[in-house]
Amino acid sequence: MSKENYNALHLKYLGINTYRENVLYLPMDAHICRSEGFEVHARVKVSLGQKEVIATLNFIENGLLAANEAGLSNAAWESLSAKEGDRIFISHTLPMRSFNHIRSKIYGHTLSQDQIQGIVKDMTDGLYSDIEISAFLSACAGGRLSLDEVVHMAQAMIDTGKRLTWGGVQVVDKHCVGGLPGNRTSLIVVPIVASYGLIMPKTSSRAITSPAGTADTMEVLAPVNLDMASMRKVVNQEKGCIIWGGSVSLSPADDILIAVERVLDIDSEGQLVASVLSKKIAAGSTHIVIDMPIGPTAKVRTPEMARLLKVYFLYVADALGVTIRIIESDGRQPIGRGIGPSLEARDILKVLQNQPDASLDLRNHAVDLAGYVLEFSDNVLKGQGRFIAEKILKSGEAWNKFYAICEAQGGFREPKTARFTHTITAETKGKVKNIDNRRLARVAKLAGAPHDQMAGIDLHTTLAKHVDCHEPLFTLHANSQGQLSYALDYLTINMDIIEIERD
Amino acid sequence: MSKENYNALHLKYLGINTYRENVLYLPMDAHICRSEGFEVHARVKVSLGQKEVIATLNFIENGLLAANEAGLSNAAWESLSAKEGDRIFISHTLPMRSFNHIRSKIYGHTLSQDQIQGIVKDMTDGLYSDIEISAFLSACAGGRLSLDEVVHMAQAMIDTGKRLTWGGVQVVDKHCVGGLPGNRTSLIVVPIVASYGLIMPKTSSRAITSPAGTADTMEVLAPVNLDMASMRKVVNQEKGCIIWGGSVSLSPADDILIAVERVLDIDSEGQLVASVLSKKIAAGSTHIVIDMPIGPTAKVRTPEMARLLKVYFLYVADALGVTIRIIESDGRQPIGRGIGPSLEARDILKVLQNQPDASLDLRNHAVDLAGYVLEFSDNVLKGQGRFIAEKILKSGEAWNKFYAICEAQGGFREPKTARFTHTITAETKGKVKNIDNRRLARVAKLAGAPHDQMAGIDLHTTLAKHVDCHEPLFTLHANSQGQLSYALDYLTINMDIIEIERD
Repeated sequence: MSKENYNALHLKYLGINTYRENVLYLPMDAHICRSEGFEVHARVKVSLGQKEVIATLNFIENGLLAANEAGLSNAAWESLSAKEGDRIFISHTLPMRSFNHIRSKIYGHTLSQDQIQGIVKDMTDGLYSDIEISAFLSACAGGRLSLDEVVHMAQAMIDTGKRLTWGGVQVVDKHCVGGLPGNRTSLIVVPIVASYGLIMPKTSSRAITSPAGTADTMEVLAPVNLDMASMRKVVNQEKGCIIWGGSVSLSPADDILIAVERVLDIDSEGQLVASVLSKKIAAGSTHIVIDMPIGPTAKVRTPEMARLLKVYFLYVADALGVTIRIIESDGRQPIGRGIGPSLEARDILKVLQNQPDASLDLRNHAVDLAGYVLEFSDNVLKGQGRFIAEKILKSGEAWNKFYAICEAQGGFREPKTARFTHTITAETKGKVKNIDNRRLARVAKLAGAPHDQMAGIDLHTTLAKHVDCHEPLFTLHANSQGQLSYALDYLTINMDIIEIERD
Repeated sequence: MSKENYNALHLKYLGINTYRENVLYLPMDAHICRSEGFEVHARVKVSLGQKEVIATLNFIENGLLAANEAGLSNAAWESLSAKEGDRIFISHTLPMRSFNHIRSKIYGHTLSQDQIQGIVKDMTDGLYSDIEISAFLSACAGGRLSLDEVVHMAQAMIDTGKRLTWGGVQVVDKHCVGGLPGNRTSLIVVPIVASYGLIMPKTSSRAITSPAGTADTMEVLAPVNLDMASMRKVVNQEKGCIIWGGSVSLSPADDILIAVERVLDIDSEGQLVASVLSKKIAAGSTHIVIDMPIGPTAKVRTPEMARLLKVYFLYVADALGVTIRIIESDGRQPIGRGIGPSLEARDILKVLQNQPDASLDLRNHAVDLAGYVLEFSDNVLKGQGRFIAEKILKSGEAWNKFYAICEAQGGFREPKTARFTHTITAETKGKVKNIDNRRLARVAKLAGAPHDQMAGIDLHTTLAKHVDCHEPLFTLHANSQGQLSYALDYLTINMDIIEIERD
């Protein structure tokens, strides 16, 4: 029997979604395991035609697979473009050279540009397991990446993905470091800036751990899964767009790292900066405003952390040839009233349409940021940006532009409202002393956001406001009684999410 | 609907062996995922009766599970003592407090005894995912564990498992740091030492990445899966035993860490020392000889690494109240001729039975080590141990004791030989300059060791020996033609495993 035939197995679709991890499922009695000495948990190479992936080996012991069959996790199935019955070959993996560099980093050495390129390339090629990625992140966190290593990391992340180009013109963008619920300013900034005439092709993310990402909120109002050609058409016509970045494959290494980072919940300045700038630069941006909310339950918790992060941002942006402007903002409470895709979309429409009950903090923050973005233009003087942004918003131009962008992306649609609501009221009279962003986000997720677009929270109060006893604090929105009661259960043991100081 | 019922699912056996990782498989359309906001890859709490585990969530999208069904990886299935149709409840996990300590370690802080106890306890309770364990190992490697942290780590590993006691008498043991194929000295040391009258209850491991562990080789000659009561009976009767440690649950945290360490292939002094000493102390040992082979392809590669490791060993042993003696040995080549369970067992019998063709290096090394162990006795003078060991071996007492131990463990049995062999000869006349332990071990594994007890390698040469052209270098043993040819394929691209310097 030739070695080739010896290692061939036929694929059976098992449909196991492991998120991003490549897993190969073999029957317990597969002859290949005996012959090759493959053991459960080993990393093996799986080849199908010209494609190959490295996968972690699991055994199936209940007879679901015949001795000559194999299964794959959906991630591996897609990477190999597999079909039922396809013949795969399995072999030992050669030791990954780039993992030696990670070991070197674990032992405290500084990595060269080539070494970092090697790691990021192998990662993008799917050669790393989550365990290996975790070891890498852990070795890089805690300030162990030098500024130059972060530059190399960002550059490698850009190089291993697609890159958009816009013909050499100035391309602006904004990014929020995050951690605040609501704060969906991009949907207001883009139409203001595009109205003025700057190019702002915004690619945004879906929620990872939050109740809504910019892409989730935009999807309430228009389609966001545009491919590169459609995106380009929208931008050529309207100067701006707001699409989901996942469909255009920018900085794929970033997505791989983020998947493991969210499990570990490590805040690493280096990874954060490489992540943000690689995505923006791959999207073709040349001038970027970074919104950095600071507050005890925001991502950036202290002024010290903000200072450190700014050093990283400025150094790396400079090395990679992009202009950035970092705006520190108040991160002590949510911005806007809605938390969850549809509720946030409603807030945005109110601001764009200049409705009298529009959320003032959201409006002000968005106009501030749009002003800073406009000041990247040679035609706008420092300090004049906000004035221009305000004018564009007030005149209705921004709303017209937003509507046009939605239409260009596939058609504007109105947000819908949830079937069930429940309002939480103050148990005492007093002053709002504290709002816990993180736990508020958690409640919105328990109510169903972001999967249920209509689910979430509608805030009725703000920091430092005086409330009466029984005055509404916020309203839960959910599409099923079960989800509503689940969020309520959580609230009964988290009564202090909104803290009121008795008068 | 009450929350309890809302989250209940019925178990279906899927038989997926993920090694140690707890995985929960849910159907894509499980209502609980919508209501709870569970996402793929999330960590969730699974409860069955009084038992609970934390598991990583995977989705099954091919209809294998009905909407009210759930599956578990075998590890989780066993931890929960699950049966087909059992009703499980799924809920969110509370943030693990001990993972904050790991984050603190990642950021470079020193951990207190309480913090390390917390981490090891949660790890033993199955609350950690491989990703989290990997982050921990990475943060501790590269000399980042202080000596005291290693002491706390070892202590915590002892405290979270079972602990054997032997009535306050002196209990001796030996441990080899490892990396050399063959070198199965324990099976000779134990009967010599037990013949003399010292208590040596040896618990040993199965192969993790090597072609044979001590337990694998002993299993060729007698049963090794003894529970604690049977082990105690053997030791009471014969003073010594050689059993598989896995059946007595000593330092379970060590097994959990090793499973991830072997994927990362990180040599961390701290973890190594905590691992070895925690296992020995949990087994009740009071006096331990540590065999430390040093060589470029052994585990300890340089004299510098040996020096560092010795400092850790001596400090931690002292803090934990055990006496150790560290013996540096030659780690440049395998010890004994056989590599693989049966071939190693054959070598051992030849030494114990004083056969004229017994492997001299194995014999000498074993007698050396037995001598050092004997010198722990108050009745043996320094320098006299080797002489006594030699006498016991030569007289046949050691062989009688070994046979008696085998009988007490369930019955002695003779090693068998493999069906296929193939001998590799020298391609040139010259002197053996180098033997690559790691790749030699790999060949033995490709031939089927340790799962096929009879498979492996029989070495016919040693370092510095003069060989003629076509003189046999080693013989491959395999039980199937496929495995034999697989090992041969590997050899064709690894002709330099035994390097010969032309005369």
